[in-house]
Amino acid sequence: MNPFCFRYSLFTLVLVICSTISDLAWAEKRYIDLTHPFDQSTIYWPTSRPFQLDEVHKGKTDSGFWYEANNFSGAEHGGTHIDAPSHFAKGRWRVDEIPLNRLIAPGILLDVSHKAEGHPDYLITENDFLEWEKIHGTIPEGSIVLVRTGWENFWPDKRKYLGSDKPGDTAHLHFPGFGSDAALFLSQRRKVGAVGLDTASLDFGQSKNYKAHQIFGEANISGFENLHRLAKLPPKGFRIIALPMKIGGGSGAPLRIVAEIE
Amino acid sequence: MNPFCFRYSLFTLVLVICSTISDLAWAEKRYIDLTHPFDQSTIYWPTSRPFQLDEVHKGKTDSGFWYEANNFSGAEHGGTHIDAPSHFAKGRWRVDEIPLNRLIAPGILLDVSHKAEGHPDYLITENDFLEWEKIHGTIPEGSIVLVRTGWENFWPDKRKYLGSDKPGDTAHLHFPGFGSDAALFLSQRRKVGAVGLDTASLDFGQSKNYKAHQIFGEANISGFENLHRLAKLPPKGFRIIALPMKIGGGSGAPLRIVAEIE
Repeated sequence: MNPFCFRYSLFTLVLVICSTISDLAWAEKRYIDLTHPFDQSTIYWPTSRPFQLDEVHKGKTDSGFWYEANNFSGAEHGGTHIDAPSHFAKGRWRVDEIPLNRLIAPGILLDVSHKAEGHPDYLITENDFLEWEKIHGTIPEGSIVLVRTGWENFWPDKRKYLGSDKPGDTAHLHFPGFGSDAALFLSQRRKVGAVGLDTASLDFGQSKNYKAHQIFGEANISGFENLHRLAKLPPKGFRIIALPMKIGGGSGAPLRIVAEIE
Repeated sequence: MNPFCFRYSLFTLVLVICSTISDLAWAEKRYIDLTHPFDQSTIYWPTSRPFQLDEVHKGKTDSGFWYEANNFSGAEHGGTHIDAPSHFAKGRWRVDEIPLNRLIAPGILLDVSHKAEGHPDYLITENDFLEWEKIHGTIPEGSIVLVRTGWENFWPDKRKYLGSDKPGDTAHLHFPGFGSDAALFLSQRRKVGAVGLDTASLDFGQSKNYKAHQIFGEANISGFENLHRLAKLPPKGFRIIALPMKIGGGSGAPLRIVAEIE
């Protein structure tokens, strides 16, 4: 090969590789909103105060300009929201104390919807994650681990989503959640940053002791509940941005959560 | 030069360049939380319902596990929050309708704190932005434009921050805001994505017609108010992630806003 030709082709190679990597890095990012809106149809725990929006003003003022404003109220734990570790673990982070790198981090998605279909008491197991790892590799430390159970398809039908639509009825709740083995695996062996799913609770509907909440809380791992559009996520290769309302001393809060895909 | 040596050194160059670009792209990101927490000290408009947190439970349950939960309420427009365009403009986006690329975008910071110091009725002008552009270049379309007035230093002293700490008193409000010329410049000539500042309102305290709100709202430009820690931001070279609570039909909402610096 002529040295000039070689030099030229290698230089071209440098340009192509660099340009590709640079394009990858600065590529237009795509966002998927994983958040249900807060309105009259938003699902809350049967014993919790639901979301309420009270109109203060909507229309033209006497001065001639348009003006809209409202007041709002509700329980911390309803709709798409965060469970701070303190929700079920004494002395752990409250919602305003959670470091930002526990809320903004690379995400992974486990889809158990085919296993949970028709099994409203389904428990997500350690084995479900080991099967995921066989295909996609070890879940990296600090990851935000999301699980799709398929229950989001029932939203906002409260009876189908929770198992009961009677206010105050916690005896007949049926929906999937994390088994204790999965909670221990993710918190102690994989040291994940946060977890989330498309049901009303980290624990399954029939849980009486909320063991998954306790295990995750003890390990200062936050939970994201009532997530939306998880079917749109790939198994990995995205980043989660999960920013809760910064309630001082809150045990939880409304959460705006989006996936960023390059 | 020996062709082997040349090939080897060029190959090394490829590696070094690629590795540098790749490092830049995947570098550890640093986050700055620009959000005040919501608690008893959070500043609201003198006529608005303040933030309230009501404890539902905090302590051990009869079943032996720890449990914390609260209810909360307040006006949409208090603390660190977003003004949706619909707040002052009929038919414009409500808070749940704002596209995510208007909330997550490259940011710029204009610092007028030296000009506003001792001038609580200071109006941010088009000229302030033209001076910024002389040094840093034209503000790119779609940018999130933040202005530091220095008023954040007064938080949470309501009298110093607003000009009055009397409930219902809107006659004696004094703090800086956007002049109409600046609002027209940013919305029509620079077509920015969103704006924000470290005071209680886009308009200055003595405004009677809220002209900046009207101009920005008409152009579907959201406003971020009562921002925190703007002194920690460089003039450019950061990304803003501003995720409001997704209130269906809301004219505004509590906002969690962070800067991402590579």
